[in-house]
Amino acid sequence: LQNTVSNLTPLAAGAEFDKIRSIWRVLGARAVGGGDDCAIVRVGDEQIAVSTDMALEGTHFREGWLTPAEIGWRATAAALSDLAAVAAEPRGVLVSLALSPEWHDDFVGELMDGVGEVAASVGAKVWGGDVVRGERLTIDVAVVGSVTNPVLRSTAGPGDRLWVTGRLGGPLAAVESWEAGQQPEETARERFARPEPRIEQAFWLRDHDAKALIDVSDGLLSDAGQLAAASSVSCAIEASTVPWHPAVTNETTALLSGEEFELLVALPHDSDADLSDRFVERFGLELTCVGRIEAGSGVALLRDGESAELPQGFRHF
Amino acid sequence: LQNTVSNLTPLAAGAEFDKIRSIWRVLGARAVGGGDDCAIVRVGDEQIAVSTDMALEGTHFREGWLTPAEIGWRATAAALSDLAAVAAEPRGVLVSLALSPEWHDDFVGELMDGVGEVAASVGAKVWGGDVVRGERLTIDVAVVGSVTNPVLRSTAGPGDRLWVTGRLGGPLAAVESWEAGQQPEETARERFARPEPRIEQAFWLRDHDAKALIDVSDGLLSDAGQLAAASSVSCAIEASTVPWHPAVTNETTALLSGEEFELLVALPHDSDADLSDRFVERFGLELTCVGRIEAGSGVALLRDGESAELPQGFRHF
Repeated sequence: LQNTVSNLTPLAAGAEFDKIRSIWRVLGARAVGGGDDCAIVRVGDEQIAVSTDMALEGTHFREGWLTPAEIGWRATAAALSDLAAVAAEPRGVLVSLALSPEWHDDFVGELMDGVGEVAASVGAKVWGGDVVRGERLTIDVAVVGSVTNPVLRSTAGPGDRLWVTGRLGGPLAAVESWEAGQQPEETARERFARPEPRIEQAFWLRDHDAKALIDVSDGLLSDAGQLAAASSVSCAIEASTVPWHPAVTNETTALLSGEEFELLVALPHDSDADLSDRFVERFGLELTCVGRIEAGSGVALLRDGESAELPQGFRHF
Repeated sequence: LQNTVSNLTPLAAGAEFDKIRSIWRVLGARAVGGGDDCAIVRVGDEQIAVSTDMALEGTHFREGWLTPAEIGWRATAAALSDLAAVAAEPRGVLVSLALSPEWHDDFVGELMDGVGEVAASVGAKVWGGDVVRGERLTIDVAVVGSVTNPVLRSTAGPGDRLWVTGRLGGPLAAVESWEAGQQPEETARERFARPEPRIEQAFWLRDHDAKALIDVSDGLLSDAGQLAAASSVSCAIEASTVPWHPAVTNETTALLSGEEFELLVALPHDSDADLSDRFVERFGLELTCVGRIEAGSGVALLRDGESAELPQGFRHF
């Protein structure tokens, strides 16, 4: 593989991605593997997928929202989800923590219990970490997986259908409740606090001819935009088909909610008619066709087949 | 390898290490590989070494001490030094950054240029990373290396001689100058700002029958204590033999200075007489015998062969 900057997977437009692009430009040939959810690199005879994900109290969650175990679970699940997004098998996690001196050892133990729990749920071990003194709670999780047949975000083609796992909007609904000073509805809160990395689901989709794969970390529309940019195609999403989490009361929440860690997958247009039923039967989780891949670029939102405005809150970061 | 918590390498006494011990206890069989500088784990047919190292402005360095490139270099060198400490070959680094909104893209580019430069100097690539919004500059670097014949810290035996690379105390001398409101002496500053991971030196020492290896990250006495605890031996260090960095004006600075990223190595008692000369010739860096391994536990400081007091500032964290 050994991609250099000259053949990086393209990212969608946006200031945040400009920053990442400028970093890769500075690094040049000193970097490999950028642009997908994981870098996929060869170490000796083995192909591994690696990624890292940092979360800060005050930026990614606020004090009082989560228990220590949930903070550890959520940060680790976010990093593991990057392995799901390329259909890699999780092997190990490394966890760096910055903690204020007031944090008791018990809290650290509970946080690491959450890390260990979600890692174990997908067959990964905790390989190590670092603990340093800081002011705001910061947790950075690096993950390593093995990957034989990765599914990238750059390999969708016109005619493919776009599917999404689960029901969207729960995490954003929970955040909106907290921000309004209310307790979130319990299942929405759970979606924010203890997201499940869709590892087994990614393997299943890979084995059912997935053409391209990405996880919903920035929001359905945003990540569809990444898949479109990487594959040099357009993603047309039919708004009425997007499955809402039960706590969601408006479409925009489902379209924009990030940190879902559900999978967005391009499957062949002629997938078996009972694909969705078999997925639900296997995982107790929905798999819903939400659109199709077309020639072109960017994301188009359709309403009953007609072109519709993208939501106001939709930012390309 | 797949060590579980039941056969972790022991750590020395101290509150900081109590915290790490309590984390490993919570994790139990969900963790592997703890207690050495790196976790050494098998992924498929390949044995890899992994570690992570987090640095915060205000905790590990202060505003104005370092250029952005030096911040990137130093944090990455610290993590790569953990690979040197087990004689692993660096392959890739993952870099997570928390940045305040005031940080210009240019600064981020310069920082990542420092990351890329030190990674390239030891044959590693930048595999990816994460950039998030924070208040204090935070950089976490995870490293992955290949390792065929690791040298651990737990395999020293009575009779071995203890050797150290380079000259100690430069980084602490630099910090002492900054803390006193002065500009550090230039070579001491360089030792703090751009430490060199001793990768090639570690391979050379491994190939010259190194019995046990650790890097000097917490200070000579402290890391000797870790090697002693891990190997169930005592480290006797003859104070008069410890090589001082030219900017160092007192013995305590050389004995306590951390983040040296020099190597402390146990070599057989009958190593060739010209070992040190050959090392200097090969690397332009000193290799000095500073003591010996004895039966017992802990660290003993000797002055002209007589037992001496450990410095006041010596804390087991």
